[in-house]
Amino acid sequence: VNDFQTLRTVQDAGVLTVFIDAPPINVIGPELIRDLIGLLAEIESQEDVRVVVFESTDPEYFVSHEDLARTAEVADPNGRDDTSLGMLFRQLSLARPVTIATIRTRARGAGSEFALACDMRFMSRERGILGQPEIGIGLTPGAGGIQHLARLLGRGRAMEVILGASDFDGDTAERYGWVNRALPDDELDGFVRQLATRIASFPSSPVRQTKAALNALTLAPSSETRSDVERYRTHARSDDAQERMAVLFARGLQTRSSLEADLGAALEEL
Amino acid sequence: VNDFQTLRTVQDAGVLTVFIDAPPINVIGPELIRDLIGLLAEIESQEDVRVVVFESTDPEYFVSHEDLARTAEVADPNGRDDTSLGMLFRQLSLARPVTIATIRTRARGAGSEFALACDMRFMSRERGILGQPEIGIGLTPGAGGIQHLARLLGRGRAMEVILGASDFDGDTAERYGWVNRALPDDELDGFVRQLATRIASFPSSPVRQTKAALNALTLAPSSETRSDVERYRTHARSDDAQERMAVLFARGLQTRSSLEADLGAALEEL
Amino acid sequence: VNDFQTLRTVQDAGVLTVFIDAPPINVIGPELIRDLIGLLAEIESQEDVRVVVFESTDPEYFVSHEDLARTAEVADPNGRDDTSLGMLFRQLSLARPVTIATIRTRARGAGSEFALACDMRFMSRERGILGQPEIGIGLTPGAGGIQHLARLLGRGRAMEVILGASDFDGDTAERYGWVNRALPDDELDGFVRQLATRIASFPSSPVRQTKAALNALTLAPSSETRSDVERYRTHARSDDAQERMAVLFARGLQTRSSLEADLGAALEEL
Repeated sequence: VNDFQTLRTVQDAGVLTVFIDAPPINVIGPELIRDLIGLLAEIESQEDVRVVVFESTDPEYFVSHEDLARTAEVADPNGRDDTSLGMLFRQLSLARPVTIATIRTRARGAGSEFALACDMRFMSRERGILGQPEIGIGLTPGAGGIQHLARLLGRGRAMEVILGASDFDGDTAERYGWVNRALPDDELDGFVRQLATRIASFPSSPVRQTKAALNALTLAPSSETRSDVERYRTHARSDDAQERMAVLFARGLQTRSSLEADLGAALEEL
Repeated sequence: VNDFQTLRTVQDAGVLTVFIDAPPINVIGPELIRDLIGLLAEIESQEDVRVVVFESTDPEYFVSHEDLARTAEVADPNGRDDTSLGMLFRQLSLARPVTIATIRTRARGAGSEFALACDMRFMSRERGILGQPEIGIGLTPGAGGIQHLARLLGRGRAMEVILGASDFDGDTAERYGWVNRALPDDELDGFVRQLATRIASFPSSPVRQTKAALNALTLAPSSETRSDVERYRTHARSDDAQERMAVLFARGLQTRSSLEADLGAALEEL
Repeated sequence: VNDFQTLRTVQDAGVLTVFIDAPPINVIGPELIRDLIGLLAEIESQEDVRVVVFESTDPEYFVSHEDLARTAEVADPNGRDDTSLGMLFRQLSLARPVTIATIRTRARGAGSEFALACDMRFMSRERGILGQPEIGIGLTPGAGGIQHLARLLGRGRAMEVILGASDFDGDTAERYGWVNRALPDDELDGFVRQLATRIASFPSSPVRQTKAALNALTLAPSSETRSDVERYRTHARSDDAQERMAVLFARGLQTRSSLEADLGAALEEL
């Protein structure tokens, strides 16, 4: 029924599992964004989808980061403020079903922001890596990272995570509150499946109304999101960012390279 | 001097220890609520009560949960909004003395919300269990759980705790910020007694004014509390909740049963 | 170029390390405050100072606490509200460079509040001690502690830390969110140096604008800071505080004494 280029879906009772499958390394570019817009429209109208679990088909990347060759399109894929990536992720947070991110591998930049937009996040203790590398590239987090991390981690840790632009492993991400829990890799899928199935079995009205009540208490106002999008765009056009991205692309950015695998460390040598 | 049916009190210098003693398993029903209203009036006027510590006389339940046979009375024991259980717990948070919950065993639903309304919470690492099972019963947390958990745990963990409706042990509750600390069971009473005695020995004006300042920064506005009460009431009258509660009562709810002991797991099979 | 009496500075590329050196035990008195005011003016105008790291030259005290022999001057060193210690620390939070506190040893009262005003805090696991002893002395935290701890730790833990006035070790401070991390003492300097150097190497505009965005989301409004200053002043003049401070001074306060080393415990016996 759907016609996704970068997403594969499997429904089992009330749980829809969505596999992100955007080779070579799951960057968030216009294709994945278009598919996410379609997916959100779809799940909003399907009452039998109670919980959505996001996973990745890639063995190394949950979502690598925004497509840095096409930052203008990523910040504003439809050329209108209210369909910016920041506002799309905000819509994901407000979606009718409960959403869970299974972060088995790397999720950086907009990949981290995508996971932060979900209602819950569970991470592989051994293999998961989270990062907000933007500052080290001359950019700023533009799709919710500033808002979510300020609220979840508090001032000191949000400053460290965003201004330091380092990679974080599962245990540290859990201690900081970036994810709900880091779990042993071989328990991760089972834990998420059990939780998703459980929530999908509960009456829908209390789930839906309580999610809305929690959102009202914890989500940023859309004016904040728009302001972060604007700051991202300004910096994406800057000489600093253009120069740094050029160096990174020359060294293997957005390919299955050692630079991309170890992006946090690579930012120090620019 | 007092005439409590479900509370026993012992005063030692400035520390009043209040034992919850509402057989068979410490549900929060009209009797316990009436006693709590009386207790709050009493401690507000007794200047020599500086710290109140809440414990339980039951070997398995701190407070099991609201009396699910009498949800209408629990949500609104006096038939007026401003004396709902949510507003009563809010008054507990604002009480003149410092309040501490010693969660040795199970505290679910309104039992968890009672502990959340206290100024601090300490939990037995081996024996303590916290849960907000409401959603699994077709209800919603109606007495402060949504407000406190959103603020203490942040969006992701509050969603998991409330929408997942699972039981949580002491270590996880501590990591999530639901309690101040989980302590080894044989250190729990000593730790709380030492802290309570210490605070009771300090000058009263700084304690009182600083508690008020912290409350002003961290408590939900009463309009939020009232809105949660209203949502609870609506769901308590729903067919979903009525049917689920009927099944649970048939299986041993509100008795010293294996269903009640393991309530979190039991919700999956309804 | 500068003329500091209680601070020593060393600049290495974009990182300015500031050593607090106010014998005998680094109390925050008028001299240190005057130097901090000067330092803030200096770093604001020096574009090449990108990150400031605060350390101490004292082997036992990062900053012991406010000068309790001169509380009136500490609360309001220049006799004007907007130059109170609370507002000075607020200005530190808003400073152009990124600020990091390396808490190797003791930081209590205004020493803790100084660290809280920095953008990030890292603490020695073995040797670090944090405390807000004010309540036990008849005072209240007056320079940001109430605001920062309410936001970072949440209601329950902020109540415990401030009303309990106990000393906290590195592991507990980390678990509570008081510091970013507690690190093994022999890794502390290396970790902070690496992070500071890294941030200093990043383009300045994204760092500066993102710090400002995070501050806007997480700092208290100045009216709150002023209200805390006022509460502190009122209590500093109280008989309770005057009597307690007199006893503490008689027992060795503000000298390299066992009472000062173990101040948290000493408050119980007043």
